[in-house]
Amino acid sequence: MNIVKKELLYEGKAKKIYKTDDENTLYVVYKDSATAFNGEKKAEISGKGRLNNEISSLIFKHLHAKGINNHFIERISETEQLIKKVTIVPLEVVVRNVVAGSMSKRLGIPEGTELEQPIIEFYYKDDALGDPLITEDHIWLLKAATPEQVETIKSITKTVNEELQTIFDDCHVRLIDFKLEFGLDADGQVLLADEISPDTCRLWDKDTNEKLDKDLFRRNLGSLTDAYEEIFKRLGGIHHV
Amino acid sequence: MNIVKKELLYEGKAKKIYKTDDENTLYVVYKDSATAFNGEKKAEISGKGRLNNEISSLIFKHLHAKGINNHFIERISETEQLIKKVTIVPLEVVVRNVVAGSMSKRLGIPEGTELEQPIIEFYYKDDALGDPLITEDHIWLLKAATPEQVETIKSITKTVNEELQTIFDDCHVRLIDFKLEFGLDADGQVLLADEISPDTCRLWDKDTNEKLDKDLFRRNLGSLTDAYEEIFKRLGGIHHV
Ligand SMILES: Nc1ncnc2c1ncn2[C@@H]1O[C@H](COP(=O)(O)OP(=O)(O)OP(=O)(O)O)[C@@H](O)[C@H]1O
Ligand SMILES: Nc1ncnc2c1ncn2[C@@H]1O[C@H](COP(=O)(O)OP(=O)(O)OP(=O)(O)O)[C@@H](O)[C@H]1O
Ligand SMILES: [Mg+2]
Ligand SMILES: [Mg+2]
Repeated sequence: MNIVKKELLYEGKAKKIYKTDDENTLYVVYKDSATAFNGEKKAEISGKGRLNNEISSLIFKHLHAKGINNHFIERISETEQLIKKVTIVPLEVVVRNVVAGSMSKRLGIPEGTELEQPIIEFYYKDDALGDPLITEDHIWLLKAATPEQVETIKSITKTVNEELQTIFDDCHVRLIDFKLEFGLDADGQVLLADEISPDTCRLWDKDTNEKLDKDLFRRNLGSLTDAYEEIFKRLGGIHHV
Repeated sequence: MNIVKKELLYEGKAKKIYKTDDENTLYVVYKDSATAFNGEKKAEISGKGRLNNEISSLIFKHLHAKGINNHFIERISETEQLIKKVTIVPLEVVVRNVVAGSMSKRLGIPEGTELEQPIIEFYYKDDALGDPLITEDHIWLLKAATPEQVETIKSITKTVNEELQTIFDDCHVRLIDFKLEFGLDADGQVLLADEISPDTCRLWDKDTNEKLDKDLFRRNLGSLTDAYEEIFKRLGGIHHV
């Protein structure tokens, strides 16, 4: 594609988003910043932007191949990709296959407890409020999404969970939980957006339960880039699926 | 009834619960303690126990008359009542007609915003966890209640909301929100339990929006007993309904 990068539209904690000469296409540059706890903890980690861009590109491409529409257009370089512009639905959609992190603390259930059924949670995407957990009634009240959009989001989310579980299982990795974001495209259709990477998933080695995700940074447990590199290496195979 | 009070079963922040010579009947003594913020703020307020016992007795009696089964048996004295023993379901069931308190803070919606539809929220009754807001999936996971019990609880809760709105409307009071607790009786049936009082409801004067509930204590806004006395006086009429 012959797309020209234009002015910066938005700089987030993990990515810079630029306009392009096509009004429905955005240009994303993945950054080397790592942040946690709503931005309280910060660091520059060389190589992180490249790894998340590569991993997220691989996964979104694979989801396309499996018939799951998403915003990904193409990888441009090690740290850059093109995406379809959407209006982000202000929800963080979290899927949990195993109890960990905030769910473990919130409910007093030990980290590592297997869930019989995956659980989908909605968090209101609002930094000032600290992205609070909300119920579906709160979604209607906040007009964050319509009931139809939420049904679509849940249905896509379940399919993504099944696909990701397969991908990671093939890499000898347990998919503990992950966060998705959705948006509305130019036609008002719900589209899977943002990124899927070790920043947005909890990934544990299947044999050792070694963490291969952002918890290494949150909890000072070891090298983030070694782990992300390992995930990228193990995912190599899905190129050819 | 000729029931003999026996040993103390449980002392909570607001009530002491005693066994009786009947294994399905408990004896409740309302205390003069006021607590807020999960017990962080405390005071002794003379007259509070009497007022809550009187108000809660009136309301539960009225709900009986309206066909809503509940744990209330009879008022014994100014501060005492008999109730049916239940196994409390570990949920605080909150109904909101108008946004206030934690919901206002959590979602960033101004206190006083009218809701088009009442909203029911579930909090997990666990002091150590700070009674967190939970979703229905969390209820199943925690085995706090079955789906059938939750449907029954929601249905009773809606009816209680309608009855309470009528009662308080007749008293020139706006029912902003309130908390209910439910239990399982000896036959495993869901029964409305605990108390309904200005400790567990937000009540605002219809003309002035003056607070007539525990927020006076939480926020140091004035005399708690004057307000509770006012509610008790205005409720006088429901004796005769
Ligand atoms: N296809 C898309 N179209 C428009 N915006 C998108 C798209 N995909 C992702 N975004 C948004 O790009 C922004 C930048 O991403 P980044 O991950 O850096 O943000 P962030 O620091 O996590 O902040 P935020 O709290 O806004 O998510 C996010 O707000 C994200 O929702
Ligand atoms: N019918 C009933 N049978 C058994 N227990 C009951 C009944 N009604 C209420 N209770 C319980 O009696 C206890 C004492 O009431 P109180 O309001 O003082 O408790 P509390 O300090 O609010 O503590 P908690 O966090 O346990 O509710 C509460 O745990 C309440 O759930
Ligand atoms: Mg982000
Ligand atoms: Mg109580």
